Formats: sequence, structure tokens, C-alpha cells
Amino acid sequence: MSIGDFKSSFDPEALGREMHELISELYPLCRSITGNGLRETLYRIQKNIPLEIHEVPSGTQVFDWTVPKEWNIRDAYVKNSKGEKIIDFHKSNLHILNYSIPFKRRVSLAELKEHLFTLPHHPEWIPYRTSYYKENWGFCLSHNQFLQLKDEEYEVFVDSTLEDGALNYGELFMEGEDVDEILISCHVCHPSLANDNLSAISLSTMLAKYLGTVSHRYSYRFLFVPGTIGAITWLCLNEASVSKIKHGLVLSGVGDTGNLTYKKSRRGNVEIDRAAVNVLKHSGQENEIMDFYPYGYDERQYCSPGFNLPVGRLSRTPYGKYPEYHTSADNLEFVHAESLGDSLLKVAAILHILENNVYYMNLNPKCEPQLGKRGLYTSIGADELVLLWVLNLSDGNHSLLDIAERSGLTFDSVCKAGKLLYENNLLEQIGYPEKI
Amino acid sequence: MSIGDFKSSFDPEALGREMHELISELYPLCRSITGNGLRETLYRIQKNIPLEIHEVPSGTQVFDWTVPKEWNIRDAYVKNSKGEKIIDFHKSNLHILNYSIPFKRRVSLAELKEHLFTLPHHPEWIPYRTSYYKENWGFCLSHNQFLQLKDEEYEVFVDSTLEDGALNYGELFMEGEDVDEILISCHVCHPSLANDNLSAISLSTMLAKYLGTVSHRYSYRFLFVPGTIGAITWLCLNEASVSKIKHGLVLSGVGDTGNLTYKKSRRGNVEIDRAAVNVLKHSGQENEIMDFYPYGYDERQYCSPGFNLPVGRLSRTPYGKYPEYHTSADNLEFVHAESLGDSLLKVAAILHILENNVYYMNLNPKCEPQLGKRGLYTSIGADELVLLWVLNLSDGNHSLLDIAERSGLTFDSVCKAGKLLYENNLLEQIGYPEKI
Amino acid sequence: MSIGDFKSSFDPEALGREMHELISELYPLCRSITGNGLRETLYRIQKNIPLEIHEVPSGTQVFDWTVPKEWNIRDAYVKNSKGEKIIDFHKSNLHILNYSIPFKRRVSLAELKEHLFTLPHHPEWIPYRTSYYKENWGFCLSHNQFLQLKDEEYEVFVDSTLEDGALNYGELFMEGEDVDEILISCHVCHPSLANDNLSAISLSTMLAKYLGTVSHRYSYRFLFVPGTIGAITWLCLNEASVSKIKHGLVLSGVGDTGNLTYKKSRRGNVEIDRAAVNVLKHSGQENEIMDFYPYGYDERQYCSPGFNLPVGRLSRTPYGKYPEYHTSADNLEFVHAESLGDSLLKVAAILHILENNVYYMNLNPKCEPQLGKRGLYTSIGADELVLLWVLNLSDGNHSLLDIAERSGLTFDSVCKAGKLLYENNLLEQIGYPEKI
Repeated sequence: MSIGDFKSSFDPEALGREMHELISELYPLCRSITGNGLRETLYRIQKNIPLEIHEVPSGTQVFDWTVPKEWNIRDAYVKNSKGEKIIDFHKSNLHILNYSIPFKRRVSLAELKEHLFTLPHHPEWIPYRTSYYKENWGFCLSHNQFLQLKDEEYEVFVDSTLEDGALNYGELFMEGEDVDEILISCHVCHPSLANDNLSAISLSTMLAKYLGTVSHRYSYRFLFVPGTIGAITWLCLNEASVSKIKHGLVLSGVGDTGNLTYKKSRRGNVEIDRAAVNVLKHSGQENEIMDFYPYGYDERQYCSPGFNLPVGRLSRTPYGKYPEYHTSADNLEFVHAESLGDSLLKVAAILHILENNVYYMNLNPKCEPQLGKRGLYTSIGADELVLLWVLNLSDGNHSLLDIAERSGLTFDSVCKAGKLLYENNLLEQIGYPEKI
Repeated sequence: MSIGDFKSSFDPEALGREMHELISELYPLCRSITGNGLRETLYRIQKNIPLEIHEVPSGTQVFDWTVPKEWNIRDAYVKNSKGEKIIDFHKSNLHILNYSIPFKRRVSLAELKEHLFTLPHHPEWIPYRTSYYKENWGFCLSHNQFLQLKDEEYEVFVDSTLEDGALNYGELFMEGEDVDEILISCHVCHPSLANDNLSAISLSTMLAKYLGTVSHRYSYRFLFVPGTIGAITWLCLNEASVSKIKHGLVLSGVGDTGNLTYKKSRRGNVEIDRAAVNVLKHSGQENEIMDFYPYGYDERQYCSPGFNLPVGRLSRTPYGKYPEYHTSADNLEFVHAESLGDSLLKVAAILHILENNVYYMNLNPKCEPQLGKRGLYTSIGADELVLLWVLNLSDGNHSLLDIAERSGLTFDSVCKAGKLLYENNLLEQIGYPEKI
Repeated sequence: MSIGDFKSSFDPEALGREMHELISELYPLCRSITGNGLRETLYRIQKNIPLEIHEVPSGTQVFDWTVPKEWNIRDAYVKNSKGEKIIDFHKSNLHILNYSIPFKRRVSLAELKEHLFTLPHHPEWIPYRTSYYKENWGFCLSHNQFLQLKDEEYEVFVDSTLEDGALNYGELFMEGEDVDEILISCHVCHPSLANDNLSAISLSTMLAKYLGTVSHRYSYRFLFVPGTIGAITWLCLNEASVSKIKHGLVLSGVGDTGNLTYKKSRRGNVEIDRAAVNVLKHSGQENEIMDFYPYGYDERQYCSPGFNLPVGRLSRTPYGKYPEYHTSADNLEFVHAESLGDSLLKVAAILHILENNVYYMNLNPKCEPQLGKRGLYTSIGADELVLLWVLNLSDGNHSLLDIAERSGLTFDSVCKAGKLLYENNLLEQIGYPEKI
């Protein structure tokens, strides 16, 4: 069994439901770029796959950055003059400005308002805000609630700590037949946001779980890292070995019902880019291919000029292009089993291309071989043309993906034709792109 | 006189009528990939041009293929219970499944039906079918006739032979000033199908006849070969010298009234491709340019990866895209003198480019030469711009075809301007693409 | 202060008015490719900028051409039988066929008509005609006036001289920090035609005046030459040093109200072409980019294959595309201060790109540097993305113009971001394209 059997072996909707369950389990935890919520998230993932959890002390220098203090929060609320909790962290962890410093004092409405964040255009939703690198406290709330605040005194309580501690990230290395690696990376630093990070955490977990059950040519490296600082930390600590990464995908926002979007690597037309384009183009679904730009998720770090790794990004609707993004509306109803399952299938299809993108050499390059005497006309009927394409282009200069691109055929059909011709001694295998 | 004078020397319609006459003469012969019909066809062509007829014994190994047994047929019919011939080979040679083995027996309607072929969507037409590599017998008939068959016993008689013999093909080599060759290839293996093969046989014959009367820079090699096995045989026997072929055209289906279609060589943008594109683009007629794909006529063999010859294909409506294809409706009325003449003109125009695609060098490369003092303004009036294009780009890096492409002008106008400037000592000739 | 400050330092409309004044001053002079009108024009320009005036004797061989005899004209008229001057050079210098030889005789209407030029489609306008290289005399007049000519005898008087003398051109070299040069060339050989040549003469003069007040990396060479023969003469006399010209612009027709048109150099995608495309594309105005063709103004000579200099052409409506072209309607009302000012701004913006198109190297190429701790988020607000683009692509292979092109951002924004990052020690400067 191989990654290519994924589609036939599993029911994507059933997988999608399993992914949604994991999202539901992780949803209530208050994640940040450091702290207990993050650690707890990694422990839960560890129950599914043999994740290694790394710890890097606060203050560690990682390239131009410093690992920040660890943030933890137990409680936070705002009480009105009657002593009623009108904003309560325990009702939604989005209420607290992420990385809020400890605070306890009575404040006027005017002072309070300087620390409140709302979304006037979506008055029922709570926004998600952070202040990682500038010490501050604050609360997020719905604009409707904000409008009802009376001019009175409020009691503010933020029971948090911001102290030396550690930054954690999860890593899973799965050895393949080869030392060359495929990197799968997602961010694990957001609190109750189902699509933004949990969808990709869940997809990565399910994918790793499945890969553990099949043979694979590539080694796989899964990273579950806090956004930006986590990827920078990992790159800094693993600088010497990143050249093993031959392809990579950053995953994020893979559970909404929007179309799939692939953002190309900085290099722009490497194998991972071409594989993803091929899968999306032949998906029969609307999709979008974006050129690289130096913003977004951790592809920013992997594709910084000093690394320039061949890493693209797969999402459904891109961040910032759906109004629920970074709000309380990015909740468990916003992500759907079918979308999650479909995203997983597409990632598997991309990996299937990378795993199988072989160069064959036609052993009868002078004129066509006689397919009829080998029974190859009848064996796959109308697919004679795909056999002829593979034979014609297997001259040592075209991989199966090259052939799929030039012929306009799906990689799957070209791959099957290649195997059939190989079994009939009409082709020999001469290697894979990263070796040639 | 040269190939370029073709258009001015001959009336294309008159040529087209001559071509149509040759088609009419060859139409009744029962051609196949071997046998008397094929030989007789080559003899008739020989009356027009000094064709050399080659003979290759059955059983000869040619790359992955074997030259098949020779097939000949004298008679074939189906009689009903009243003894009436209801299907008669002598009425149309399409009635017999090409390569039918000898057979003589009374059969039931049920058994007979397993050997009958019809076209339900075109109930008045007889289809054309073959069984070269699987021994079988059969008849083709109109679907209307098929529907009238009664449930009675039939007498089937196929008076054919399938025995060791030979495969024949015709070859005509016309020496030019240079050893470099242009290949013109057509297939000669189909029975009464006027457009499918006879149109191209006729065009090739007329072209060769004309080339015999003019000087030409290239040597020309005309092949009249049975499809697939003939081309494979020729390539196998001439493997050592195919590198002399600098350009080639496979011709087929050049007599219908559809638009011209050029299919590029596997290499995709070589001189023959660019010449054909230039001619079609400036023809003022609708036309189609297709990328190479590994199916079709003998370009499949010439463009197999072990040869990868710069060979394209010129047709009018491509095979399979007109309903008359491979039926009795591809008859003498289906091909038209005007279309045949036009196709011949276009081939001549393509060859004209190849023959004349010289690199000139501007002898006054620094600033423009003064055209006025040489009377070159008035000599061709509004065509000053084409003179300036040729002067400007004749820097050793641009052939006349390059100049035509970049300027958007016709090759003819650029070629005439080049000659005029050359005669005025403003250019020197530095060679041809295949020599540089 | 630098060329980049142009836009902010000057009011384009005020500049446009100053340009229009210079045009008005030069308008009445009867310029030709040689003679007093040309010299007087150069003297007037010399009052504004330190122009060097060169003189080349008639008969000098310049490549394939010969410097012509010098033409001067004092008076010219046609009188009717009543002795009334019906065509008078002193009313418009367009009335005389430029380079008319001396002539004095009574002629019939029939003979006169062979020497008259009109514009039947624009019956109120006087055309502009020349006969530099074929000795002739003639008059240009409105078609309406032509239609009223009676069949009588006319007295024709052309008080001109065509004798050995000299060809003049103006040249201004402005030394920069570098020996590499930018060429700005315009033609100075047309009489009362405001847009055709005066607009560009005026723009070049204003630009040179301004450049004299700022520092600049490149050296600048301004040429005010008679069309064709002047450029050829200059190239012939300066052949040894033209390789110093790294970029060049031919200017003409920059004062009408049409859209800007840039015609690319023969090389087609060199830095001057890309700079001009970038400026026009981001101008927010309709514009046209044309590929090179070997016709037009003196780019024909600069881009001849023996020189092939990286010289493009900037105009508004191209010559021949507006009916007023080469007629009396190309007058002082046809050119507008706003258009002139806008054209000057665009030239300054193109030069700004060339002056500042540096290659930076990111000093923190591994992962992003932390912009926040340097206050670079707040410093330019929403422009974080441009900072990231410059950092991401400053890998030694991308100049600022490359970055602007790939990101789709304006050169200005990319350039400002580069400076800001450079000042924050995040980039080092590694050189300019022509040095790498």
C-alpha cells in the first residue's frame, strides 16, 4: 500500500469527520505562541501520532529574534459596578488580548475603552487580537456589547503570567526509503479558531497517522510550530540539515467550504508547485493558483532568501479573504467534514505525485513498439494515447509529471500507463528528479 | 526557375484538376499494406515520376515489428439463399475487411453478423475496416442493407491469400545542391478512399514532377509507404542516413474543402514548424496549428524519441474530424481540384521558405545606408519598411524567417527585399540555418 | 537633491508654461537640417544651457552618407498677374518647400502646379514638405487657396542658397559620478512645427537645466541634432566612445494632449525599456508600449545593428497618428503646458529609476528580520509588504526594478523601502546593473 492508494482506501468524509472530532477536542484550549495551552495541544496530538515535543528556553537568540517569555493565563474578566462579570475569559478565550500582562484595578469607562477591541462591521462577533512583542493588556468583545457599556467604573482582572519559561513545538520525523525529506508544517499558536489553525493541525495529524501505515520513498518531517517565532526557531536549530528538504507544504485554513488555493514557493515552478498545480487543475473544482509573495504563514520563513526552500502553501479560502477570519465566527460550525476530507485527499494526491514522479527510459525508442502483440491495446482500451505519450516522451528528459503537463493528461493516468509499460519491459526506470 | 516561382508559373486549379485525375485513376485499386493493389499503385505513380520500388520480404524484423505476410484478393462475396450476390467485392473494395483470410462456407445469419461491420449513424455509407495483425474475415456494408438481411443461410466466399511475400514501398531521391534532405512522406495503403491517402499521393507526385523541372538547394526524398509498417521498415533500413533529413512533412487528407491544419513536429518550434506557421498565418484563410501529439500518421514514427526528426504534418480537416473519414463517402466527389491545388501551393510556399531562408549580413551596419541614392525608395515604393527591417536585423543572428516573424511581414516580402538589397551590395549572404 | 526630487521640487504646470515659452520663442525660425535657422535655434538654446555647438563641413563623409550643402533662405513668394503676393514665405516658413533651390521666373499655372503641395483632406492647413537630397523648388499652401488659383501667369521667386557650408548640432555633456552615460536626443531640423520638434527641444533644455542643479550618478549627454544626417554625423564622429552610453531616450512630439507612447529599443527589454514601462504602467494614465521597428526618429540610427544602443523613444501621440502632424496645424495652440510638464515629469521618473536601480543584499537573509523591534512597522504603516518584498528579493539577483516588476509595486515605493532598510542596517548596497 502506498500514499497513492489513499483515495481508494479511505472514505474522505469519514476521515473528515474524524478530523472534525480532533478539532472539537482542541478548540477550547487557549493556545498562544508559548505556554500551557500550546503544550496541552501538543500532548493531545501526541495521543494520535508519536510527536516529539521540543522545548526552547525564553531568551534564546534565534537569528534576528529572541524566544519570548512564556505566557500563561488562568482567569480574566471585567466586572461592572454591580459586580457582574460582563466579559469573562472562561466563556471564550478570544475575550482576552493574547499575551495580556497581569492587571488588576478599577478603571473608568474611558480608560477601559483604550483596551477594548471590537468589530463594528460584524457587531455580533468577538475579534481575535494579540500583543506578543509590546506589553499590554486588553479585552475583545462583540461590538453590540461594547455599545451597551455604561459610563461607570469597571473592575478589571487579568490573572496571567509573563515570565521566563520556554517555547514548545512538535516535530515528527518519519523515515522513508530515502534521506530526502518532505516538510509538512502548520502553526499551533491560535486559541479557539477552528479553521485558522486547527483545521491544518488536524489534517497534518491524520496524514501522519496514515503515512505511518504505508511505505514511502521520501522521509517526512511534520512540524507543529507557533507561527513565525516557532518556524524561525526550528530553522535556526536545524540550519545544517534543511538542505534535505526537497519539497514542502505549509497548511492552514483547510476546513472552510471555499475553493482550494495554492500559493507557489518563492522559486515559483519547482516540483511541489507543479504537483499542486496539476492536482488542482485536474480536480474538476474551481481553484486558485497564486504566485509567491512574502507575506502569509510560515512560508515567509522557509522561503526567506537565505533558505529559499521549495515550500508552497495550501489553503482553501486564503486568510483575510473570509470575514470570519480571526473572529469568534471561525468556530466549529465554520469547518466542515467534507472540506477537511477533500483537503486531505488533495494533499495525498500531491504527495502521490512527488513519490511517483519517476523518469523512465523507452527501451524501444526507435519507432513505436508493437503494442498489439503484447495485448496492450485491449488491456486499457481507449487509453492507447496515454501509453503513446509515455513512450514518446520517456527519452530521459521527461519525468511522468513533465509528460502529464505536456499531454494535458492527469498524473494518475500517466503514472498507471508508465507502470503498465514498465511491467511489459518497454520502459526502464532511471531515477527521480531530485537525483538527476 | 525555383520552387518559389511555383505560384506564378502554374495555375493551381489546373494542377488541382491534374491531381484529381490521378486520384480517379488510382481510386478503384484495392490497396493494402502489402500486395498487388499496392504494387499497381506504385507502378502508376512511376508513370509520372522516376520512383524506385523497394521490396522487403515477409518475416523481416524491423525494430519491434515483423514485415507481415502478403495479402492478395481476387474475389469476395456473400450470396443469399436465392444465390444472389448481396455483398460483392467487385462493386466496392471497401466491402471486404482488409486482410481477410480465405474463407468459403455456408453460414447462418447469426454467424455472418459476427463478421459484418456497418455505420448505424451513417446508414448509407460502407465503413472501411482492417485486421492486419489478427487473422479474421469479414465484410463491410451499409447499415440500411444490414437491416434488410433475412434470417436465412448465406454463402460466404473470400478468395484471398495471406502468404509469405513482400512489402513494397516507393522512394524517389532528387539530388539538390546540398546533401541535406527534405522528406515528403505519404501513406499508400488504403483502398478506395480519395481524401485519406490518394489526395496526398497525388500531391506528392505532382510536387516531385515539378521539382524535377527546377533547381533546388536541398535534396528531396519522397516516400510512398504503407502506413506504420512501411515507415518503420524504411526507418530501419535507412537508420544510418536519417540524420541528413533536416526537415520533413507527412501529407494526408489534403483534398477536402476544410481549412488547412498543420501539426508541429515533436521538437515543436523547428524551421519546418515555423515555415508552415508563417505560410498558414499569412494565407488569409482560416487555419489551425496543432501541437505535436504521439498519434496520427507516420509522424508517429519519424518523431519517435529515438529519431526525433523535424517532421510535421499538413492536412486539411484532420482525420477523424470529418464524418466521411474511413467510409465510402470519402470518394471522388469528396475531394476538389481547388482544395488540392491550394494544398500544393501551400506545400510549395513552405518549401520556398526552407529553400530561401538565408542569413544575410548588413554591409553598412552602422546607421542606415542611404537608400535614396541607390534609387531604392522609388523602386518598391511603400515597401521601404521591409527594406529597413531586413537591414536592421541582418546582423548575423537573424535569418529571413526570423525577420519575417519579428516584423510580422510575409516571408515573400522579406525575401524579395533581401534579394534587392543583396543585388545593391548592401548585404552579403552568410549561410543557412542548418549550416550555422 | 537628486533627479528623484523633481516631482516634489517643481510644479509641472509652471515648468510646462516655461517650456511653452521657449517653444514660442523658437517657433518663427525657419529651421532645416543645415543653415542659419538651425544655428539660431542652437544659439537660443545656449542662452538656457551651456550647449557646445559643433560644425561639420559640407561634403564630409559620414558612414554611407555625405554632409549636404548648406541651405539658407531669405525670401520666397509667388505673385499673381496683378503682382499680388499670393504665397509669401514671410507669412509662414512652411510655405516654402524646405531645401528649395534658388528660382526666379514667370511660369504658367500648369507649371506652377507641379511645384505646389496641398492637403485636400485638410483644406485649411499648409503641409510641410522637404526635398533634401533631390534638387527641386516648390511651395506648400492650403488646398482652399490652391482651388482659387486662376489660369494666369505667376511670378515665382525663391531667394535661397544651396552651397558648401556646414551642418551644425548642439551637444551638452554633464559629468556625473560615473563615466557611464545616459543619452537624451532630439531633432532640431523642422521649421514652425510646435509639437514635432520644438516640444522635445524644449523638454530637453528644461531637463538639462534642472540636471545642472542636482547631483547625478550617471553622466548625461544631450544631443540637439538635425534628424537622420545629424545623428549619423554624431555617431560617425563619436564611434569610439558610444559604448559609454548605457541608456538613451529619443524625444519627439511630447506636447500634444494624447497619451504617452514608449517605443522600446531594438534590444527590447533592457533597463531603459523596463524603466519606461514601469513609469507608464503605474502612471494611472492610458499609455502605449510599442515594440521596436526600424522606422521613426533617430532611434533608427542609434539602434542600427552596428551600434544597437539601448535607446528607446518617448512621445505622446506618435508621429503620423494625428492629422496635424507635419502641417501648419501643429502650431502653438496644439502644444499644452500640462502635457509638456507631464512629459517632463515622466522622463524625470524614468531617469530616477535608472539613477537608483541598485542591487541590495539582505544582511539577515535567514528568516525575516524582526521589523517590530526597529520600529519599522509603525514607521510606514500599511507598507509592511513592500519592506518584505525588498528583504525577500534582495539576494544579489534582484535590483530594485526587478523587485518592483515582480511585486507589481511602484519603483518609488520599492526604492523608499530599500533606503529605509538600508538606513536600518538591514541591507547593504552591492552595485548597479551595468556594473554587475
